[in-house]
Amino acid sequence: MQTAYEKLLQATEKNKSLLCVGLDTDIKKIPAHLGRDIEGLARFNREIIEATKDLVSSYKMNFAFYERYGIDGWQALKKTFEMIPGDIFTIADAKRGDIGNTSEAYADAAFGWFGADSVTVNPYMGSDSVEPFLKRRDKMVFVLALTSNPGSADFQRLECGGKPLYRHVIEKAMTYAPAENIGFVVGATHPGELSEVRAAAGQRALLIPGVGAQGGDVEAVINANAGAPAVINASRAVIYAGGGKDFAEKAREKARKYQVAFGA
Amino acid sequence: MQTAYEKLLQATEKNKSLLCVGLDTDIKKIPAHLGRDIEGLARFNREIIEATKDLVSSYKMNFAFYERYGIDGWQALKKTFEMIPGDIFTIADAKRGDIGNTSEAYADAAFGWFGADSVTVNPYMGSDSVEPFLKRRDKMVFVLALTSNPGSADFQRLECGGKPLYRHVIEKAMTYAPAENIGFVVGATHPGELSEVRAAAGQRALLIPGVGAQGGDVEAVINANAGAPAVINASRAVIYAGGGKDFAEKAREKARKYQVAFGA
Repeated sequence: MQTAYEKLLQATEKNKSLLCVGLDTDIKKIPAHLGRDIEGLARFNREIIEATKDLVSSYKMNFAFYERYGIDGWQALKKTFEMIPGDIFTIADAKRGDIGNTSEAYADAAFGWFGADSVTVNPYMGSDSVEPFLKRRDKMVFVLALTSNPGSADFQRLECGGKPLYRHVIEKAMTYAPAENIGFVVGATHPGELSEVRAAAGQRALLIPGVGAQGGDVEAVINANAGAPAVINASRAVIYAGGGKDFAEKAREKARKYQVAFGA
Repeated sequence: MQTAYEKLLQATEKNKSLLCVGLDTDIKKIPAHLGRDIEGLARFNREIIEATKDLVSSYKMNFAFYERYGIDGWQALKKTFEMIPGDIFTIADAKRGDIGNTSEAYADAAFGWFGADSVTVNPYMGSDSVEPFLKRRDKMVFVLALTSNPGSADFQRLECGGKPLYRHVIEKAMTYAPAENIGFVVGATHPGELSEVRAAAGQRALLIPGVGAQGGDVEAVINANAGAPAVINASRAVIYAGGGKDFAEKAREKARKYQVAFGA
């Protein structure tokens, strides 16, 4: 059976792309002609996927943007997972994590019910909160290390015994599972640290958000990643590149620009 | 308008109880006669609530146990929130947290769609990941500080500049919002630290999980909390106290024992 890691590498190779498009879809921001309701949101996702599926390695669904609409949102999220071609890698960006028996239930949701290839996990609660997600050796976990937001300075960069917390997280999490099963989230907004993380993480996949609306520097990110497996995510910058009837075409143009800029 | 904090204090007073019953309901563990499906799960929750609602201050719904069943699970979770009497405090135990615009969407889900009085939030991503949950001044946030699981030792207890990470989290988070809007999660499995946290946190509410199946010592917890606002959670020990047709009665007996043991 193909593992999620292999699927990611093959999708990257096939589409010659490190780009992940983040489907952080907000009903208030989709073009009016689609209808600003949950059906409009699903139509929007379908058109974005159709317009970009040969330019990306992966799609990332941030669960919050669906959960805000309750059950209808979950239904749209499930539909969105189903719209994605089977050879494109999927990320359940859910940032889950809880005590052991609870993380197991979250893993069931992400991998079982949604059928995601990978899930983002928050490491704050420690090893027994992450390990249940790693029982599926055919799947992947991206552990939050140094996130793209300004608040990442509050705790992740705290010096603890000579090195910042996020380095402790990386070193510890690398012991949880084989390299193919565990990757890290490191924001594109921290290119210096990204190159240190890459050196520490070997060929583990990095999920790099923060290019686009959050202002991460593409060239610095590509240099820092040094050609290793990576998923570079842009959400708002791609999906809202246009606001009219040609939104899908505009999204494709933007995705194409990133695909080229990222190399691969 | 009554704030969530006031509601918690009034429910505690009215039922003379610090007990929170955690509705971490697992279809595989409910009595067979209810039917081991999602409808059975909802029936189970209804009977547990009916049998314990005069003995508790609050109910805590751990989202993972519902999400594992997909849309049906979300529907059952929504129904469960609706079953809870309006004067009993509710906790969306969702352990969410993400960059600002995303945490906003998670807050919409917990407070808006589910109508929870409070939500548990993971602090790893820093201030801008917690603050969107604090915009609703009529609601409450419980920030994870020192959790009840063994993995809490991995990062939460890391010494950073002379004190453990969880103390940094508490000090920082206390600056985010008025005392009524922010509380902390501290496991009953750490009674020594609980008394330090209580001294630091003043009259902020503490959510204390880990009594019951996780083995926290009730007397030590009560002493450490020193009579301040608290929600002491037991999940499995109450809801699975009996496994037969008298499960609700057994749950009531166990809840009653905790109510008495916790004082109030």
